[in-house]
Amino acid sequence: MTNLILDKAVAALLVVDPYNDFISEGGKLWGRIKAVAEANNCVPHMLQVLNAARKAKLRVFYALHRRYRPGDYETWKYIAPIQKAAWSHKAFEYGTWGSAIRPEFEPKPDEIVATEHWCSSGFANTDLDLQLKKHGIHQLIVIGLIAHTCIEATVRFAAELGYNVTMVKDATADYSNEEMHAALDINIPNYASAIVTTNEVIESISSLKP
Amino acid sequence: MTNLILDKAVAALLVVDPYNDFISEGGKLWGRIKAVAEANNCVPHMLQVLNAARKAKLRVFYALHRRYRPGDYETWKYIAPIQKAAWSHKAFEYGTWGSAIRPEFEPKPDEIVATEHWCSSGFANTDLDLQLKKHGIHQLIVIGLIAHTCIEATVRFAAELGYNVTMVKDATADYSNEEMHAALDINIPNYASAIVTTNEVIESISSLKP
Amino acid sequence: MTNLILDKAVAALLVVDPYNDFISEGGKLWGRIKAVAEANNCVPHMLQVLNAARKAKLRVFYALHRRYRPGDYETWKYIAPIQKAAWSHKAFEYGTWGSAIRPEFEPKPDEIVATEHWCSSGFANTDLDLQLKKHGIHQLIVIGLIAHTCIEATVRFAAELGYNVTMVKDATADYSNEEMHAALDINIPNYASAIVTTNEVIESISSLKP
Amino acid sequence: MTNLILDKAVAALLVVDPYNDFISEGGKLWGRIKAVAEANNCVPHMLQVLNAARKAKLRVFYALHRRYRPGDYETWKYIAPIQKAAWSHKAFEYGTWGSAIRPEFEPKPDEIVATEHWCSSGFANTDLDLQLKKHGIHQLIVIGLIAHTCIEATVRFAAELGYNVTMVKDATADYSNEEMHAALDINIPNYASAIVTTNEVIESISSLKP
Repeated sequence: MTNLILDKAVAALLVVDPYNDFISEGGKLWGRIKAVAEANNCVPHMLQVLNAARKAKLRVFYALHRRYRPGDYETWKYIAPIQKAAWSHKAFEYGTWGSAIRPEFEPKPDEIVATEHWCSSGFANTDLDLQLKKHGIHQLIVIGLIAHTCIEATVRFAAELGYNVTMVKDATADYSNEEMHAALDINIPNYASAIVTTNEVIESISSLKP
Repeated sequence: MTNLILDKAVAALLVVDPYNDFISEGGKLWGRIKAVAEANNCVPHMLQVLNAARKAKLRVFYALHRRYRPGDYETWKYIAPIQKAAWSHKAFEYGTWGSAIRPEFEPKPDEIVATEHWCSSGFANTDLDLQLKKHGIHQLIVIGLIAHTCIEATVRFAAELGYNVTMVKDATADYSNEEMHAALDINIPNYASAIVTTNEVIESISSLKP
Repeated sequence: MTNLILDKAVAALLVVDPYNDFISEGGKLWGRIKAVAEANNCVPHMLQVLNAARKAKLRVFYALHRRYRPGDYETWKYIAPIQKAAWSHKAFEYGTWGSAIRPEFEPKPDEIVATEHWCSSGFANTDLDLQLKKHGIHQLIVIGLIAHTCIEATVRFAAELGYNVTMVKDATADYSNEEMHAALDINIPNYASAIVTTNEVIESISSLKP
Repeated sequence: MTNLILDKAVAALLVVDPYNDFISEGGKLWGRIKAVAEANNCVPHMLQVLNAARKAKLRVFYALHRRYRPGDYETWKYIAPIQKAAWSHKAFEYGTWGSAIRPEFEPKPDEIVATEHWCSSGFANTDLDLQLKKHGIHQLIVIGLIAHTCIEATVRFAAELGYNVTMVKDATADYSNEEMHAALDINIPNYASAIVTTNEVIESISSLKP
């Protein structure tokens, strides 16, 4: 954590895909991430970071995956494998419990929910970059799911677009330890300026003047 | 129309902001555009172009302005004058009749509605470019409102991003003839490869093999 | 100028296309803008604003049009009218005097030159947004050429992307008064938060603590 | 290769960073990738794919990393770790042999070189997306360096932006087998519709009508 220095005027928390389908018992994909998520206390950690940010009055943003609606992909000429999978699983199906945000993570009225993303990056084809600019944000603390897809993609795009990124390594999860390792140890260190634990980031956030 | 050559494999119709607030009797902004819109038969022309496109099985896309929701702007540090005006007028207020699409222009199930735009361009901070790519589109026929704001912005962005644009000059309207002239005669000719009448574009569309 | 409040921590000057071909005697396009440019003292004003910014240690960025190189357009399937014109005129031809920056406007070593733009907006398909983010900039003072093409496009994109824009109305020029009027009086007021004179902006800049 | 179907009208080859510093004996980074690159014949394979594409008259594009120039990073407030490394190594230093393209890969006059990228993705803050659109391209065959940084980033961005991607798995290399595995086996399969060998892609390319 030696290199984690938060500047409250320009820092924000970014919560990625806290859907029931991912992180609630009974969610369509929970069974696939449960082992990794429980081993590192992912969901409680996510909540601790969110609560610390709210308490310190850090601004909070949400990046949410496209909720599946019939007709989304039928007419596409080109579709990536990960989108084919989303189409087939109907994960985050619009109007269902699975595509609702897990209740403890429900956005507050003054928190910003970006438009839904179609692939993995919270930035691609959404208003996330605009919303961050409109609030003067340059530094992002990132938590959420899945480490090697949406999280890594969002961290990569954030860095490519010019943001300073802090990754909270025990507030994310993945289908396997190998995928988690690829994201956290191989790729994200190139793009995130700090990779920290929940305890470390909470300590930093809590030291900010509210 | 000498330079209008449609290639059905890559052409689409783009309908911009056909909201009741703009183009229906009783809409919040209809009073301000009525004189120009009735002088050139804007709404009937928009409908004729849409129907011709549907009949020829041209793909149809919609670019829609952000429907106003309380909280949209309160936290922004930076806001453009046109966004301040939108905030003040509450045009296209979410959940109201004014922000519904005028019934004849209601998207069909296989037509694509891009995510809402926050300023004037249908491309900025939305998935419109993605959706066009996913359908292999390179050529856009543009109709809708308002000529010197959303229409001009969308045409400018389309050209900047690499699309070929056809503007239908009597299927748009504006608050005044001067603003209409600035859009159609001064600026759009730099970015749209063809500027045509409704009759001309319908003739071209109708000649396409369905 | 009532609404011009510069925040030095996030403000910068953006100079658009100060090429010899535009603003030097003998430039390919100087003849076409000379009447308007001399009537409002465009070039001396641009220089005064630049010098004031440098003196106040405001950060300075340059947005430059693609310098024409043979082969630029020959293979394109789609080309906008303004690009066809650029191809035909060979304005800003690479390696020639015309595509050199007029000497008084030559960037200093710590000033940032964005990659060249292909159409009108200094933001489209360039690294300008990245460079502004990397320097923490949110507020842009815009000067340069041509009012209704590159300047208006750059102002529109800046606003769409979330920047606060100040337009200096007598540090730009155009081919005609009508085009100048369309840019400065009809369109840019929707996107620029302040439209000021050179004297007004210099007064604001000079009041910043260096 | 079962899923590799090239459509010549919309397909192109994308060559990423064929700099001497990466792939020539004596290059600054060659020593670090040599073991992996020689094990899979990366450089000869890259050349075979390029030559097959040229012979079949597939369009060829180049995505090149920013060539280091003094002053590039000194003024940045925010810098990603991979950019700090680039700054420190001065890889691809402007004007040196290391930042020249290895001679066999030198672009031909009708091949398109995108503007240089500042981080890892060939798309971010460049004109690559524009150039692909201007040529009607939707399908990309990707070769070059380094697998888990620029290649993976470019493939991810291509998919996010709507392109169909084919990755040639033995025409890339990396610093270690583990990083190569993370890119080729863990991440890229989510975004590339086909992952093929050089032999497989050459067979497909060669079957296209020139």
